[in-house]
Amino acid sequence: MAVLYDRVALIGLGLIAGSMSLAMRAGGLAGETVGYARSPETRAAARQIGLVDRVAESAAEAVAGADLVVLAVPVGVMGAVAAEIAPHLKPGATVTDVGSVKQAVIEAVAPHIPAGVHFVPGHPLAGTEHSGPHSGFAALFRNRWWLLTPPEGTDPEATARLAALIRAMGANVEDMDAAHHDLVLAVTSHTPHLIAYTMVGVADHLKRVTESEVIKYSAAGFRDFTRIAASDPTMWRDVFLQNKEAVLDILGRFTEELFMLQRAIRMGDGAQLHDYFTRTRAIRRGIIEAGQDTSAPDFGRMPAGAATGQD
Amino acid sequence: MAVLYDRVALIGLGLIAGSMSLAMRAGGLAGETVGYARSPETRAAARQIGLVDRVAESAAEAVAGADLVVLAVPVGVMGAVAAEIAPHLKPGATVTDVGSVKQAVIEAVAPHIPAGVHFVPGHPLAGTEHSGPHSGFAALFRNRWWLLTPPEGTDPEATARLAALIRAMGANVEDMDAAHHDLVLAVTSHTPHLIAYTMVGVADHLKRVTESEVIKYSAAGFRDFTRIAASDPTMWRDVFLQNKEAVLDILGRFTEELFMLQRAIRMGDGAQLHDYFTRTRAIRRGIIEAGQDTSAPDFGRMPAGAATGQD
Repeated sequence: MAVLYDRVALIGLGLIAGSMSLAMRAGGLAGETVGYARSPETRAAARQIGLVDRVAESAAEAVAGADLVVLAVPVGVMGAVAAEIAPHLKPGATVTDVGSVKQAVIEAVAPHIPAGVHFVPGHPLAGTEHSGPHSGFAALFRNRWWLLTPPEGTDPEATARLAALIRAMGANVEDMDAAHHDLVLAVTSHTPHLIAYTMVGVADHLKRVTESEVIKYSAAGFRDFTRIAASDPTMWRDVFLQNKEAVLDILGRFTEELFMLQRAIRMGDGAQLHDYFTRTRAIRRGIIEAGQDTSAPDFGRMPAGAATGQD
Repeated sequence: MAVLYDRVALIGLGLIAGSMSLAMRAGGLAGETVGYARSPETRAAARQIGLVDRVAESAAEAVAGADLVVLAVPVGVMGAVAAEIAPHLKPGATVTDVGSVKQAVIEAVAPHIPAGVHFVPGHPLAGTEHSGPHSGFAALFRNRWWLLTPPEGTDPEATARLAALIRAMGANVEDMDAAHHDLVLAVTSHTPHLIAYTMVGVADHLKRVTESEVIKYSAAGFRDFTRIAASDPTMWRDVFLQNKEAVLDILGRFTEELFMLQRAIRMGDGAQLHDYFTRTRAIRRGIIEAGQDTSAPDFGRMPAGAATGQD
């Protein structure tokens, strides 16, 4: 696998940036990786585990001479970071990001990008519930989708080169309009996250059911919600603040739908419930067929010491 | 492992009953297993795969001479089945069920249980998204909780003997008041299921986002919801109709909470969102520590061909 960028600067050293660094190292895709994080503890941890080839003491220092700059900070601070590094970007460099919302990032970052520097916003649809410099791993992106939303007029060669890097890390690349991206992700990710957070919050507040009961009996459906709700609070705060319109749009539809089902329960309308639940099974089958999940029992997650289950 | 019941009758031959039969066979826990299902296709399939030692042609025939009778039918028909088998139950036999709601089952079944027959309602907190006679496996119950809700006055020896069987199948047993069970499960299972169904339904209706996009980009949070929403429609229709009060109680709290967060998003109140998300992480840690889940990346679910991720 050939080196695609001589020097890659990673601003922010959490799950995504760390995984990118490890994937690039594993594939020999970058000549040198340089990293910066705002927190001294994170920089120290990154040095200690050798997460990147070199840890800089400022974002400006990190991007000096870099051919690719990856903004891997919460979307709420992308603009400030862009403003800080802009004077130090090498002509011909490419700047990308990995934020979960795209329109807000483009609005915040694009004005700071100098002429001659390429800006190709992106979003890897990958992650775990963990954060920080120790959480990344090289295989994170394998078989996952990575969406690119280059604004009109972006140099297609710069986009193609970044796409090649992403594919070399194992992901599938797709171009998308930024506004459409924000709506799709409001449906597939942002609103589901908010709903999961809310359900866990309800359980937390309920005095009549103890926390230990919620925890003990959580294999019953709640467990899946808690994984989603353990995501990084800072990242998600910014996602909701920065994708407000699309999220409120989908939330409105969600509450209409939920009240309809609540009414069906109150009225004892079993037929309506049965029809509704039957239709949702079809979407599940579609996901398994699209290769985005496994139909193995319990997601292939087996209790310790259990024999392998048959499907 | 000793035989705990000479003859076990399983009424209904889906995921739970099938798994019980296979677990009892694997552990030598029953002398003979007899099964019955209403659908001739299911009975034929059960015969073909040897799911039980003998398939009966009626529920009455199945329970004749049985020491333990397991009602593994949708909760909406438990009463009718109990009425049908009551005259054929052996004195001293134990009747149990595996329904996801308990008060409604007790109300429907208890009146039909003859004097001298023990009724020990139960609920195994285990399952997958699959249904039917081919879906069961012996390891389903390992390390899972199985709740028993014996009404006051139930013979403690009958309860203890059933508990021994359940432990021998690998589960942990806990006694609980039936009404409290229904509330706890409304929180940990029933309402989360309804919410997952609703989110999948919203995605299904949305015309601006195509079904293939929802499917392709579903690794982003939505995927977990779809697994929950692929559960058996008949079983879940009955759960909601039969646990109406507790579900409406929890749903009301959920919508209050959701509107509070929706307002915070609309007002741009980042601090409130951040606080809320920070608190929910603690519940997730509690679940991992209680041994009910794994903290391995992506639930230990790795894409085909990916290297093992580190935590």
